[in-house]
Amino acid sequence: MMGMVHLVGAGPGDPDLLTIKAQRILQTADVVLHDRLVGEGVLDLIPDRTARVPVGKTPGNQHATQQRILRLMVSHACQGRTVARLKGGDPFVYGRGSEEWEYLSRRSIPVEVTPGLTSAVAVPPLAGIPLTHRGIASSFTVVTGRAAGTSPDWSSYTAVDTLVILMSIANRVRIAASLISAGRPGDEPAAFIECGSTPKERVTVTTLAEIASGGVQVHSPAVFVIGHVVSLRGRVTLPGNHHRADLPPALRGPA
Amino acid sequence: MMGMVHLVGAGPGDPDLLTIKAQRILQTADVVLHDRLVGEGVLDLIPDRTARVPVGKTPGNQHATQQRILRLMVSHACQGRTVARLKGGDPFVYGRGSEEWEYLSRRSIPVEVTPGLTSAVAVPPLAGIPLTHRGIASSFTVVTGRAAGTSPDWSSYTAVDTLVILMSIANRVRIAASLISAGRPGDEPAAFIECGSTPKERVTVTTLAEIASGGVQVHSPAVFVIGHVVSLRGRVTLPGNHHRADLPPALRGPA
Repeated sequence: MMGMVHLVGAGPGDPDLLTIKAQRILQTADVVLHDRLVGEGVLDLIPDRTARVPVGKTPGNQHATQQRILRLMVSHACQGRTVARLKGGDPFVYGRGSEEWEYLSRRSIPVEVTPGLTSAVAVPPLAGIPLTHRGIASSFTVVTGRAAGTSPDWSSYTAVDTLVILMSIANRVRIAASLISAGRPGDEPAAFIECGSTPKERVTVTTLAEIASGGVQVHSPAVFVIGHVVSLRGRVTLPGNHHRADLPPALRGPA
Repeated sequence: MMGMVHLVGAGPGDPDLLTIKAQRILQTADVVLHDRLVGEGVLDLIPDRTARVPVGKTPGNQHATQQRILRLMVSHACQGRTVARLKGGDPFVYGRGSEEWEYLSRRSIPVEVTPGLTSAVAVPPLAGIPLTHRGIASSFTVVTGRAAGTSPDWSSYTAVDTLVILMSIANRVRIAASLISAGRPGDEPAAFIECGSTPKERVTVTTLAEIASGGVQVHSPAVFVIGHVVSLRGRVTLPGNHHRADLPPALRGPA
Protein backbone atom coordinates (compact mmCIF):
# COMPACT_ATOMS: atom_id res chain seq x y z
CA MET A 1 0.00 0.00 0.00
CA MET A 2 1.26 3.46 -0.93
CA GLY A 3 2.16 5.87 1.84
CA MET A 4 2.10 9.62 1.51
CA VAL A 5 4.13 12.76 2.06
CA HIS A 6 3.12 15.76 4.13
CA LEU A 7 4.91 18.97 3.15
CA VAL A 8 4.83 20.76 6.50
CA GLY A 9 5.92 24.23 7.58
CA ALA A 10 7.60 24.36 10.98
CA GLY A 11 7.17 28.10 11.47
CA PRO A 12 9.83 30.58 12.60
CA GLY A 13 11.25 28.64 15.56
CA ASP A 14 8.97 28.93 18.58
CA PRO A 15 7.17 25.54 18.84
CA ASP A 16 4.08 27.39 20.08
CA LEU A 17 3.79 28.89 16.59
CA LEU A 18 3.40 25.53 14.89
CA THR A 19 -0.10 24.90 13.54
CA ILE A 20 -2.40 22.39 15.22
CA LYS A 21 -2.29 20.33 12.03
CA ALA A 22 1.51 20.30 11.86
CA GLN A 23 1.69 19.19 15.49
CA ARG A 24 -0.66 16.28 14.80
CA ILE A 25 1.30 15.25 11.70
CA LEU A 26 4.56 15.22 13.69
CA GLN A 27 2.93 13.06 16.33
CA THR A 28 1.56 10.51 13.84
CA ALA A 29 4.09 10.35 10.98
CA ASP A 30 6.28 7.28 10.58
CA VAL A 31 9.31 9.28 9.56
CA VAL A 32 10.23 12.98 9.73
CA LEU A 33 12.73 14.44 7.24
CA HIS A 34 13.68 17.85 8.59
CA ASP A 35 15.73 20.83 7.53
CA ARG A 36 18.58 22.36 9.47
CA LEU A 37 16.65 25.52 10.34
CA VAL A 38 13.74 23.80 12.09
CA GLY A 39 13.66 24.90 15.73
CA GLU A 40 14.86 22.50 18.45
CA GLY A 41 11.61 22.95 20.32
CA VAL A 42 9.68 21.83 17.26
CA LEU A 43 11.81 18.70 16.92
CA ASP A 44 11.12 17.93 20.58
CA LEU A 45 7.46 17.39 19.63
CA ILE A 46 8.40 14.32 17.56
CA PRO A 47 7.83 11.11 19.56
CA ASP A 48 10.87 8.96 20.37
CA ARG A 49 9.50 6.05 18.36
CA THR A 50 9.48 8.11 15.14
CA ALA A 51 12.41 7.97 12.71
CA ARG A 52 13.93 11.44 12.50
CA VAL A 53 16.26 12.20 9.61
CA PRO A 54 18.09 15.53 9.39
CA VAL A 55 18.43 16.43 5.72
CA GLY A 56 19.68 20.00 6.03
CA LYS A 57 21.54 21.44 3.10
CA THR A 58 25.00 22.85 3.57
CA PRO A 59 26.58 25.15 1.00
CA GLY A 60 28.42 23.38 -1.78
CA ASN A 61 26.52 20.11 -2.05
CA GLN A 62 22.97 21.36 -2.47
CA HIS A 63 22.16 19.42 -5.61
CA ALA A 64 23.31 16.09 -4.16
CA THR A 65 21.46 16.78 -0.91
CA GLN A 66 18.25 17.66 -2.73
CA GLN A 67 18.46 14.46 -4.79
CA ARG A 68 18.88 12.47 -1.58
CA ILE A 69 15.82 14.14 -0.04
CA LEU A 70 13.70 13.31 -3.09
CA ARG A 71 14.86 9.68 -3.08
CA LEU A 72 14.23 9.32 0.66
CA MET A 73 10.68 10.67 0.38
CA VAL A 74 9.85 8.35 -2.50
CA SER A 75 11.45 5.34 -0.85
CA HIS A 76 9.60 5.76 2.45
CA ALA A 77 6.26 6.52 0.80
CA CYS A 78 6.57 3.51 -1.53
CA GLN A 79 7.07 1.33 1.55
CA GLY A 80 3.70 2.52 2.84
CA ARG A 81 5.01 5.04 5.34
CA THR A 82 3.56 8.44 6.18
CA VAL A 83 6.38 10.90 5.68
CA ALA A 84 6.51 14.38 7.24
CA ARG A 85 8.81 16.61 5.21
CA LEU A 86 9.37 19.37 7.74
CA LYS A 87 10.75 22.71 6.58
CA GLY A 88 11.56 25.86 8.53
CA GLY A 89 8.99 28.62 8.03
CA ASP A 90 6.62 27.88 5.16
CA PRO A 91 7.44 25.15 2.60
CA PHE A 92 6.60 27.42 -0.34
CA VAL A 93 8.55 30.53 0.58
CA TYR A 94 12.02 29.61 -0.74
CA GLY A 95 11.60 26.12 0.66
CA ARG A 96 11.72 24.17 -2.61
CA GLY A 97 8.36 22.83 -1.49
CA SER A 98 6.86 23.18 -4.94
CA GLU A 99 9.77 21.32 -6.56
CA GLU A 100 9.32 18.42 -4.14
CA TRP A 101 5.56 18.44 -4.65
CA GLU A 102 6.00 18.33 -8.43
CA TYR A 103 8.52 15.47 -8.17
CA LEU A 104 6.21 13.42 -5.95
CA SER A 105 3.18 14.14 -8.14
CA ARG A 106 5.00 12.79 -11.21
CA ARG A 107 5.49 9.55 -9.29
CA SER A 108 1.85 9.44 -8.16
CA ILE A 109 2.76 9.76 -4.51
CA PRO A 110 -0.03 11.48 -2.56
CA VAL A 111 0.97 14.82 -1.07
CA GLU A 112 -0.75 16.96 1.50
CA VAL A 113 0.24 20.54 2.18
CA THR A 114 0.36 22.15 5.62
CA PRO A 115 1.48 25.78 5.43
CA GLY A 116 3.61 27.25 8.22
CA LEU A 117 4.29 30.75 9.46
CA THR A 118 7.06 32.16 7.32
CA SER A 119 9.58 34.17 9.33
CA ALA A 120 9.23 36.92 6.70
CA VAL A 121 5.72 37.71 7.92
CA ALA A 122 5.66 36.41 11.52
CA VAL A 123 9.00 37.59 12.88
CA PRO A 124 8.81 41.38 12.29
CA PRO A 125 5.58 41.99 14.27
CA LEU A 126 6.86 39.83 17.13
CA ALA A 127 9.72 42.33 17.27
CA GLY A 128 7.35 45.32 17.16
CA ILE A 129 7.51 45.95 13.41
CA PRO A 130 4.21 45.50 11.53
CA LEU A 131 4.54 44.90 7.78
CA THR A 132 1.54 47.07 6.92
CA HIS A 133 0.18 50.14 8.68
CA ARG A 134 -2.52 52.50 7.44
CA GLY A 135 -0.97 55.60 5.85
CA ILE A 136 2.59 54.17 6.09
CA ALA A 137 2.70 50.89 4.16
CA SER A 138 -0.07 49.31 2.13
CA SER A 139 2.09 46.55 0.65
CA PHE A 140 5.03 44.35 1.50
CA THR A 141 7.42 42.44 -0.70
CA VAL A 142 9.38 39.35 0.28
CA VAL A 143 12.55 38.62 -1.67
CA THR A 144 15.61 36.42 -1.21
CA GLY A 145 19.02 38.00 -0.86
CA ARG A 146 20.85 34.87 -1.93
CA ALA A 147 23.15 35.47 -4.89
CA ALA A 148 22.77 31.91 -6.21
CA GLY A 149 20.81 31.61 -9.42
CA THR A 150 19.31 34.74 -10.89
CA SER A 151 20.39 37.62 -8.68
CA PRO A 152 17.44 39.95 -8.17
CA ASP A 153 17.34 43.26 -9.99
CA TRP A 154 17.02 45.51 -6.96
CA SER A 155 15.59 48.35 -9.06
CA SER A 156 12.36 46.31 -9.17
CA TYR A 157 12.03 46.89 -5.44
CA THR A 158 12.40 50.64 -5.33
CA ALA A 159 8.75 51.63 -5.41
CA VAL A 160 7.28 48.95 -3.16
CA ASP A 161 6.49 49.83 0.46
CA THR A 162 7.89 47.45 3.08
CA LEU A 163 10.66 45.18 1.83
CA VAL A 164 11.53 41.94 3.68
CA ILE A 165 14.68 40.13 2.60
CA LEU A 166 15.42 36.56 3.67
CA MET A 167 18.78 34.79 3.42
CA SER A 168 20.42 38.16 3.04
CA ILE A 169 22.94 38.47 5.85
CA ALA A 170 26.11 37.60 3.93
CA ASN A 171 25.13 40.03 1.15
CA ARG A 172 23.64 42.81 3.29
CA VAL A 173 26.23 45.48 2.41
CA ARG A 174 25.86 44.94 -1.33
CA ILE A 175 22.05 44.74 -1.10
CA ALA A 176 21.76 47.99 0.87
CA ALA A 177 24.11 49.76 -1.55
CA SER A 178 22.13 48.43 -4.55
CA LEU A 179 18.83 49.59 -3.07
CA ILE A 180 20.24 53.08 -2.46
CA SER A 181 21.64 53.18 -6.02
CA ALA A 182 18.23 52.11 -7.31
CA GLY A 183 16.56 55.00 -5.52
CA ARG A 184 15.58 54.01 -1.97
CA PRO A 185 16.69 56.77 0.46
CA GLY A 186 19.83 56.12 2.49
CA ASP A 187 18.12 57.29 5.67
CA GLU A 188 15.26 54.82 5.24
CA PRO A 189 14.83 52.83 8.46
CA ALA A 190 15.88 49.20 8.39
CA ALA A 191 16.10 46.40 10.94
CA PHE A 192 17.64 42.99 11.36
CA ILE A 193 15.89 40.48 13.58
CA GLU A 194 18.15 37.57 14.47
CA CYS A 195 16.63 34.32 15.79
CA GLY A 196 13.14 35.79 15.68
CA SER A 197 10.44 34.24 17.88
CA THR A 198 13.03 32.51 20.08
CA PRO A 199 14.62 33.53 23.42
CA LYS A 200 17.79 34.37 21.47
CA GLU A 201 16.01 37.06 19.45
CA ARG A 202 18.12 40.20 18.88
CA VAL A 203 16.85 43.29 17.05
CA THR A 204 19.09 45.90 15.42
CA VAL A 205 17.42 49.08 14.16
CA THR A 206 19.49 51.06 11.68
CA THR A 207 19.32 52.69 8.23
CA LEU A 208 20.10 51.55 4.70
CA ALA A 209 23.13 53.88 4.57
CA GLU A 210 24.61 52.44 7.77
CA ILE A 211 24.23 48.93 6.43
CA ALA A 212 25.79 49.94 3.09
CA SER A 213 28.77 51.39 4.98
CA GLY A 214 29.50 47.94 6.39
CA GLY A 215 29.08 49.03 9.98
CA VAL A 216 26.21 46.78 11.05
CA GLN A 217 27.15 43.42 12.57
CA VAL A 218 24.55 40.68 12.35
CA HIS A 219 24.48 36.90 12.15
CA SER A 220 22.30 34.36 10.35
CA PRO A 221 19.50 33.45 10.59
CA ALA A 222 18.03 36.92 10.48
CA VAL A 223 15.14 38.72 8.81
CA PHE A 224 16.06 42.04 7.12
CA VAL A 225 13.19 44.57 7.04
CA ILE A 226 13.31 47.90 5.21
CA GLY A 227 10.70 50.64 5.36
CA HIS A 228 9.01 53.26 7.47
CA VAL A 229 7.17 50.57 9.43
CA VAL A 230 10.49 49.97 11.24
CA SER A 231 10.06 53.30 13.02
CA LEU A 232 6.70 52.15 14.44
CA ARG A 233 8.65 49.90 16.80
CA GLY A 234 9.17 52.90 19.07
CA ARG A 235 5.42 53.32 19.49
CA VAL A 236 4.60 49.95 21.01
CA THR A 237 5.58 48.19 24.20
CA LEU A 238 7.03 44.71 23.93
CA PRO A 239 6.32 43.18 27.31
CA GLY A 240 5.21 39.70 26.55
CA ASN A 241 7.06 38.42 23.58
CA HIS A 242 10.52 39.60 24.54
CA HIS A 243 12.68 37.91 27.09
CA ARG A 244 9.81 35.81 28.37
CA ALA A 245 12.26 32.96 28.77
CA ASP A 246 14.30 35.14 31.15
CA LEU A 247 11.35 35.44 33.50
CA PRO A 248 10.31 32.81 36.04
CA PRO A 249 7.06 31.14 34.84
CA ALA A 250 4.98 32.78 37.57
CA LEU A 251 5.79 36.23 36.21
CA ARG A 252 5.16 35.49 32.56
CA GLY A 253 1.43 36.09 32.73
CA PRO A 254 -1.12 34.08 30.80
CA ALA A 255 0.42 32.43 27.80
CA MET B 1 -5.09 44.26 38.75
CA MET B 2 -4.51 45.06 35.07
CA GLY B 3 -5.49 42.49 32.50
CA MET B 4 -3.93 42.17 29.08
CA VAL B 5 -4.73 41.94 25.40
CA HIS B 6 -3.60 39.20 23.04
CA LEU B 7 -3.54 40.26 19.39
CA VAL B 8 -4.15 36.89 17.76
CA GLY B 9 -4.23 35.74 14.16
CA ALA B 10 -6.96 33.22 13.36
CA GLY B 11 -5.42 32.03 10.10
CA PRO B 12 -7.20 31.59 6.77
CA GLY B 13 -10.28 29.68 7.97
CA ASP B 14 -9.43 26.03 8.60
CA PRO B 15 -9.27 25.67 12.42
CA ASP B 16 -6.48 23.12 11.95
CA LEU B 17 -4.30 25.98 10.69
CA LEU B 18 -4.53 27.91 13.94
CA THR B 19 -1.28 27.98 15.91
CA ILE B 20 -0.93 25.98 19.11
CA LYS B 21 -0.52 29.26 20.99
CA ALA B 22 -3.65 30.81 19.50
CA GLN B 23 -5.64 27.72 20.43
CA ARG B 24 -4.45 27.95 24.04
CA ILE B 25 -5.26 31.66 24.20
CA LEU B 26 -8.80 31.05 22.93
CA GLN B 27 -9.26 28.35 25.57
CA THR B 28 -8.06 30.53 28.45
CA ALA B 29 -9.10 34.09 27.61
CA ASP B 30 -11.91 35.74 29.55
CA VAL B 31 -13.33 37.48 26.50
CA VAL B 32 -12.83 37.09 22.75
CA LEU B 33 -13.40 40.06 20.43
CA HIS B 34 -13.49 38.64 16.93
CA ASP B 35 -13.71 39.90 13.36
CA ARG B 36 -16.33 38.91 10.83
CA LEU B 37 -13.89 36.92 8.70
CA VAL B 38 -12.78 34.52 11.43
CA GLY B 39 -13.74 30.98 10.42
CA GLU B 40 -16.69 29.31 12.13
CA GLY B 41 -14.53 26.32 13.02
CA VAL B 42 -12.11 28.60 14.83
CA LEU B 43 -14.93 30.18 16.84
CA ASP B 44 -16.07 26.68 17.81
CA LEU B 45 -12.83 26.30 19.78
CA ILE B 46 -13.92 29.02 22.22
CA PRO B 47 -15.39 27.50 25.40
CA ASP B 48 -19.06 28.19 26.15
CA ARG B 49 -18.14 29.99 29.38
CA THR B 50 -16.13 32.61 27.51
CA ALA B 51 -17.67 35.92 26.50
CA ARG B 52 -17.62 36.13 22.72
CA VAL B 53 -18.14 39.53 21.09
CA PRO B 54 -18.37 39.87 17.30
CA VAL B 55 -16.89 43.22 16.36
CA GLY B 56 -16.76 42.84 12.59
CA LYS B 57 -16.59 45.95 10.51
CA THR B 58 -19.19 46.55 7.83
CA PRO B 59 -18.67 49.13 5.10
CA GLY B 60 -19.79 52.62 6.01
CA ASN B 61 -19.25 52.70 9.76
CA GLN B 62 -15.65 51.61 10.02
CA HIS B 63 -14.44 54.49 12.13
CA ALA B 64 -17.18 54.10 14.73
CA THR B 65 -16.67 50.34 14.84
CA GLN B 66 -12.93 50.72 15.31
CA GLN B 67 -13.47 53.18 18.16
CA ARG B 68 -15.81 50.70 19.81
CA ILE B 69 -13.23 47.92 19.50
CA LEU B 70 -10.54 50.06 21.10
CA ARG B 71 -12.84 51.04 23.96
CA LEU B 72 -13.92 47.44 24.55
CA MET B 73 -10.33 46.18 24.72
CA VAL B 74 -9.34 48.90 27.20
CA SER B 75 -12.44 48.44 29.30
CA HIS B 76 -12.05 44.66 29.65
CA ALA B 77 -8.29 44.84 30.28
CA CYS B 78 -8.72 47.54 32.92
CA GLN B 79 -11.17 45.26 34.72
CA GLY B 80 -8.40 42.66 34.97
CA ARG B 81 -9.56 40.46 32.12
CA THR B 82 -7.46 38.62 29.59
CA VAL B 83 -8.74 39.71 26.20
CA ALA B 84 -8.19 37.80 22.96
CA ARG B 85 -8.49 40.15 20.00
CA LEU B 86 -8.97 37.61 17.24
CA LYS B 87 -8.46 38.65 13.63
CA GLY B 88 -8.77 36.68 10.40
CA GLY B 89 -5.39 35.77 8.91
CA ASP B 90 -2.52 37.66 10.56
CA PRO B 91 -3.20 40.72 12.74
CA PHE B 92 -0.50 42.78 11.01
CA VAL B 93 -1.37 42.16 7.37
CA TYR B 94 -4.12 44.78 6.85
CA GLY B 95 -5.61 43.87 10.20
CA ARG B 96 -5.09 47.22 11.97
CA GLY B 97 -3.19 45.16 14.52
CA SER B 98 -0.43 47.73 14.80
CA GLU B 99 -2.92 50.57 15.34
CA GLU B 100 -4.57 48.63 18.17
CA TRP B 101 -1.18 47.73 19.65
CA GLU B 102 -0.10 51.37 19.60
CA TYR B 103 -3.37 52.50 21.21
CA LEU B 104 -3.06 49.93 24.01
CA SER B 105 0.62 50.73 24.55
CA ARG B 106 -0.16 54.41 25.06
CA ARG B 107 -2.55 53.34 27.84
CA SER B 108 0.04 50.99 29.40
CA ILE B 109 -2.06 47.93 28.73
CA PRO B 110 0.14 44.84 28.25
CA VAL B 111 -0.06 43.34 24.77
CA GLU B 112 1.13 40.02 23.49
CA VAL B 113 1.34 39.21 19.81
CA THR B 114 0.46 35.83 18.27
CA PRO B 115 0.93 35.85 14.51
CA GLY B 116 -1.43 33.86 12.31
CA LEU B 117 -1.22 32.43 8.81
CA THR B 118 -2.19 35.19 6.42
CA SER B 119 -4.37 33.95 3.57
CA ALA B 120 -2.04 35.82 1.19
CA VAL B 121 0.72 33.29 1.84
CA ALA B 122 -1.13 30.18 3.06
CA VAL B 123 -4.05 29.96 0.65
CA PRO B 124 -2.28 29.85 -2.76
CA PRO B 125 -0.10 26.76 -2.03
CA LEU B 126 -3.11 24.93 -0.57
CA ALA B 127 -4.66 25.44 -4.01
CA GLY B 128 -1.52 24.22 -5.82
CA ILE B 129 0.05 27.64 -6.43
CA PRO B 130 3.41 28.23 -4.70
CA LEU B 131 4.40 31.89 -4.26
CA THR B 132 8.06 31.25 -5.07
CA HIS B 133 9.65 28.66 -7.36
CA ARG B 134 13.27 28.44 -8.47
CA GLY B 135 13.69 29.98 -11.92
CA ILE B 136 10.10 31.29 -12.00
CA ALA B 137 9.57 33.60 -9.03
CA SER B 138 12.12 34.71 -6.46
CA SER B 139 9.88 37.29 -4.80
CA PHE B 140 6.27 37.92 -3.95
CA THR B 141 4.42 41.10 -3.12
CA VAL B 142 1.26 41.39 -1.07
CA VAL B 143 -0.91 44.44 -1.64
CA THR B 144 -4.46 45.48 -0.82
CA GLY B 145 -6.92 46.16 -3.62
CA ARG B 146 -9.15 48.30 -1.49
CA ALA B 147 -9.66 51.79 -2.87
CA ALA B 148 -10.07 53.40 0.56
CA GLY B 149 -7.26 55.69 1.60
CA THR B 150 -4.28 55.98 -0.68
CA SER B 151 -5.07 53.93 -3.76
CA PRO B 152 -1.98 51.99 -4.78
CA ASP B 153 0.03 53.13 -7.78
CA TRP B 154 -0.08 49.89 -9.75
CA SER B 155 2.98 50.85 -11.78
CA SER B 156 5.02 50.09 -8.63
CA TYR B 157 4.03 46.45 -9.05
CA THR B 158 5.05 45.90 -12.63
CA ALA B 159 8.53 44.48 -12.10
CA VAL B 160 7.88 42.31 -9.06
CA ASP B 161 7.45 38.55 -9.55
CA THR B 162 4.36 37.03 -7.92
CA LEU B 163 1.69 39.52 -6.94
CA VAL B 164 -0.95 38.67 -4.32
CA ILE B 165 -3.84 41.07 -3.89
CA LEU B 166 -6.17 40.91 -0.91
CA MET B 167 -9.57 42.62 -0.61
CA SER B 168 -9.57 43.07 -4.35
CA ILE B 169 -12.69 41.36 -5.65
CA ALA B 170 -14.92 44.40 -6.10
CA ASN B 171 -12.10 46.22 -7.94
CA ARG B 172 -10.68 43.31 -9.92
CA VAL B 173 -11.55 44.63 -13.38
CA ARG B 174 -9.95 48.02 -12.74
CA ILE B 175 -6.90 46.45 -11.04
CA ALA B 176 -6.25 44.03 -13.92
CA ALA B 177 -6.62 46.84 -16.47
CA SER B 178 -4.26 49.08 -14.47
CA LEU B 179 -1.64 46.33 -14.22
CA ILE B 180 -1.79 45.74 -17.98
CA SER B 181 -1.52 49.51 -18.62
CA ALA B 182 1.48 49.61 -16.29
CA GLY B 183 3.22 46.90 -18.29
CA ARG B 184 2.28 43.45 -17.00
CA PRO B 185 1.38 41.20 -19.97
CA GLY B 186 -2.31 40.57 -20.62
CA ASP B 187 -1.69 36.85 -21.02
CA GLU B 188 -0.02 36.59 -17.62
CA PRO B 189 -1.66 33.78 -15.63
CA ALA B 190 -3.83 34.80 -12.71
CA ALA B 191 -6.05 32.97 -10.26
CA PHE B 192 -8.77 33.66 -7.74
CA ILE B 193 -9.07 31.38 -4.74
CA GLU B 194 -12.40 31.83 -2.96
CA CYS B 195 -12.83 30.58 0.62
CA GLY B 196 -9.30 29.17 0.63
CA SER B 197 -8.46 26.40 3.13
CA THR B 198 -12.15 25.60 3.68
CA PRO B 199 -14.43 22.95 2.13
CA LYS B 200 -16.02 25.77 0.09
CA GLU B 201 -12.75 26.55 -1.68
CA ARG B 202 -13.15 27.36 -5.38
CA VAL B 203 -10.23 28.11 -7.70
CA THR B 204 -10.53 30.02 -10.99
CA VAL B 205 -7.47 30.08 -13.24
CA THR B 206 -7.51 32.80 -15.87
CA THR B 207 -5.40 35.66 -17.28
CA LEU B 208 -5.07 39.36 -16.54
CA ALA B 209 -6.73 40.22 -19.88
CA GLU B 210 -9.77 38.04 -19.16
CA ILE B 211 -10.20 39.69 -15.77
CA ALA B 212 -9.81 43.16 -17.31
CA SER B 213 -12.55 42.29 -19.82
CA GLY B 214 -14.99 41.77 -16.95
CA GLY B 215 -15.65 38.15 -17.80
CA VAL B 216 -14.48 36.47 -14.60
CA GLN B 217 -17.10 35.95 -11.89
CA VAL B 218 -15.82 35.62 -8.36
CA HIS B 219 -17.06 36.37 -4.86
CA SER B 220 -15.44 37.61 -1.65
CA PRO B 221 -13.50 36.52 0.31
CA ALA B 222 -10.95 35.55 -2.31
CA VAL B 223 -7.20 35.77 -2.81
CA PHE B 224 -6.12 37.15 -6.20
CA VAL B 225 -2.73 35.78 -7.40
CA ILE B 226 -0.89 36.98 -10.51
CA GLY B 227 2.25 35.47 -11.98
CA HIS B 228 3.80 32.51 -13.73
CA VAL B 229 3.59 30.45 -10.54
CA VAL B 230 -0.13 30.10 -11.29
CA SER B 231 0.73 27.78 -14.19
CA LEU B 232 2.60 25.44 -11.80
CA ARG B 233 -0.81 24.33 -10.53
CA GLY B 234 -1.05 21.97 -13.49
CA ARG B 235 2.10 20.15 -12.42
CA VAL B 236 0.96 18.97 -9.01
CA THR B 237 -1.78 16.67 -7.79
CA LEU B 238 -4.18 17.99 -5.18
CA PRO B 239 -5.49 14.88 -3.48
CA GLY B 240 -5.52 15.70 0.15
CA ASN B 241 -6.41 19.32 0.58
CA HIS B 242 -9.23 19.45 -1.93
CA HIS B 243 -12.70 18.20 -1.26
CA ARG B 244 -11.54 16.26 1.78
CA ALA B 245 -14.79 17.22 3.44
CA ASP B 246 -16.67 15.48 0.61
CA LEU B 247 -15.04 12.17 1.45
CA PRO B 248 -16.12 9.87 4.25
CA PRO B 249 -13.53 10.00 7.06
CA ALA B 250 -12.25 6.49 6.35
CA LEU B 251 -11.14 7.52 2.88
CA ARG B 252 -9.45 10.75 3.85
CA GLY B 253 -6.16 9.13 4.78
CA PRO B 254 -4.00 10.26 7.67
CA ALA B 255 -4.77 13.80 8.69
